[in-house]
Amino acid sequence: MSFKPRGFVSVIGPSYAKVSDPLYVFARELGRALVDHGFVIYSGGKRGIMEAVFRGARESEHYFFGATIGILPDSDRHSANRYTDISVPTGIGYARNSIVAHSADVVIALGGGSGTLSEIAFAWQFGKKIIAIDTFDGWAKELSGLKLDKRRRDKILKASDIETVIKHLEKLFPQNKK
Amino acid sequence: MSFKPRGFVSVIGPSYAKVSDPLYVFARELGRALVDHGFVIYSGGKRGIMEAVFRGARESEHYFFGATIGILPDSDRHSANRYTDISVPTGIGYARNSIVAHSADVVIALGGGSGTLSEIAFAWQFGKKIIAIDTFDGWAKELSGLKLDKRRRDKILKASDIETVIKHLEKLFPQNKK
Amino acid sequence: MSFKPRGFVSVIGPSYAKVSDPLYVFARELGRALVDHGFVIYSGGKRGIMEAVFRGARESEHYFFGATIGILPDSDRHSANRYTDISVPTGIGYARNSIVAHSADVVIALGGGSGTLSEIAFAWQFGKKIIAIDTFDGWAKELSGLKLDKRRRDKILKASDIETVIKHLEKLFPQNKK
Amino acid sequence: MSFKPRGFVSVIGPSYAKVSDPLYVFARELGRALVDHGFVIYSGGKRGIMEAVFRGARESEHYFFGATIGILPDSDRHSANRYTDISVPTGIGYARNSIVAHSADVVIALGGGSGTLSEIAFAWQFGKKIIAIDTFDGWAKELSGLKLDKRRRDKILKASDIETVIKHLEKLFPQNKK
Repeated sequence: MSFKPRGFVSVIGPSYAKVSDPLYVFARELGRALVDHGFVIYSGGKRGIMEAVFRGARESEHYFFGATIGILPDSDRHSANRYTDISVPTGIGYARNSIVAHSADVVIALGGGSGTLSEIAFAWQFGKKIIAIDTFDGWAKELSGLKLDKRRRDKILKASDIETVIKHLEKLFPQNKK
Repeated sequence: MSFKPRGFVSVIGPSYAKVSDPLYVFARELGRALVDHGFVIYSGGKRGIMEAVFRGARESEHYFFGATIGILPDSDRHSANRYTDISVPTGIGYARNSIVAHSADVVIALGGGSGTLSEIAFAWQFGKKIIAIDTFDGWAKELSGLKLDKRRRDKILKASDIETVIKHLEKLFPQNKK
Repeated sequence: MSFKPRGFVSVIGPSYAKVSDPLYVFARELGRALVDHGFVIYSGGKRGIMEAVFRGARESEHYFFGATIGILPDSDRHSANRYTDISVPTGIGYARNSIVAHSADVVIALGGGSGTLSEIAFAWQFGKKIIAIDTFDGWAKELSGLKLDKRRRDKILKASDIETVIKHLEKLFPQNKK
Repeated sequence: MSFKPRGFVSVIGPSYAKVSDPLYVFARELGRALVDHGFVIYSGGKRGIMEAVFRGARESEHYFFGATIGILPDSDRHSANRYTDISVPTGIGYARNSIVAHSADVVIALGGGSGTLSEIAFAWQFGKKIIAIDTFDGWAKELSGLKLDKRRRDKILKASDIETVIKHLEKLFPQNKK
């Protein structure tokens, strides 16, 4: 019988954050919390936030194989960060941002330059629920609480801490008696 | 001997604008002006702004075959709008937005929901000069005059009318004695 | 600590095989055997052989979550077959065949019409080891034991039964004392 | 009023052929003949056969701008060969082979290693008419006159010289009184 994850989320954010950056620290804790709550995580599979969130996932005591899936721009499966369980070397460059957005039920954004912005835009266009962390400078903060256009009635959800992210997710992925 | 266009531009904007909309009217005039000045135009090849700009291109008295190139999300070459000279049916869905951004030297944005936003974000990430029309509501207006992140020193150029667009282009594509 | 699969393989074959077809039966046993030996399996995530091999994977008593990864042509994550653990809805249509080839260390082909042929061609071009089952009609049989061009010195490996597939894999993924 | 090309073809073949190779010479003459007869040509936009066919196109006395369209694997529009009128830098690597196949009504193949093989396979899968030159070693020769699978009733057309290619095209693109 198959283990059934609670849900599938994509985490998007800049590739340049370093281990000691508050943004990296936050993403790492986020990764741990997501796996603690039974979520599988997709990301772009490279450095910075993508590494941080997978690293945190591996540190969760509820970590399970398959929890971290890297959707890479590169064609080399070994170019994923070392915390990646499943490497998907698309070979299609930044066009892979659309796959990161398509893959998950919910997209969580933090920090963010133009790369992250394209992913938030795709996620909105594809009808994905988006949770934007408003604690760090970047497009996630700028767009939190807003609508990107009129095609949807809802807004980008806002969260300032991991507890709120999890609360949003618990509403979006309801479960019996948990 | 080969005819040499003055330059290659991509025009991006919403697919829902109708023939009588000010946005459509503007894009149609823009298409004409671009071809008048010797530019080849890439767009997403579908309706709305993509149709308007190609339609205007065909109306230019300097129109030449090859002036309108539609980078389609679909896999059917006949799904381009009727003003498309060269159809490129990518079959890769919205991931084709990255190709629209890669193809041109300069990207011109007007109006714009989340689809246009992803293209502006890609254009910035790929180092393309961007001219944003600030006359109509949408992401082009919101972002005109701004930087999307710190990777570039320049800003998104602003234009309120077609004359200014052409002035920007003349600076970006200098020519002897013209 | 992370569980480490023995290796990553892609299985390619036609989408039209039905449950009682010898080809389906073979692919299902193959899926089971692959997971029995600790391999993670990528496929196109749809019906026929792609379903069979994932179904077999789930039936293995060594089945683990993450063993079946569907690289879908569609943009909808729920369009994968029901035995798919990790859905990767690329949204890029048949261009996703290149991702199926990039993703694995070794590609196993069986049966096969033109779709499978494009995947075998990509796998060869990308330098992947290929094992072709020569028991069933189709491109896998036609090409087993051959070279596709001069860029490589090796040949497409041939196998007539699952035992031989596993033997090939054990050579390609050597392990201490197993 | 828009010039209307007689039709749109893709030419596929190996990237390694050199100027004096019979294969290159043939492709160059083919390019000239195609433009002489009013066809627009898509190719992968790189070296070898892709260069030869575009070079010939430019040498036709009926050459018109827009006759040569390079669907590049790269993301840089300037990476096309110098005979390319319209550069489409897809940035999606070898996945662009599917776009080359989608773009044309008819695909002409010559020579050919595994890259060309993936394009022939896609062309067949996408229902495109295929003309394979059987004069030079490679997959085009191997597959000329054959069916790739049962999904189609027709076969890959065979041609040994340029005259025959043009005859096939004239049948496929009938014209009044020409």
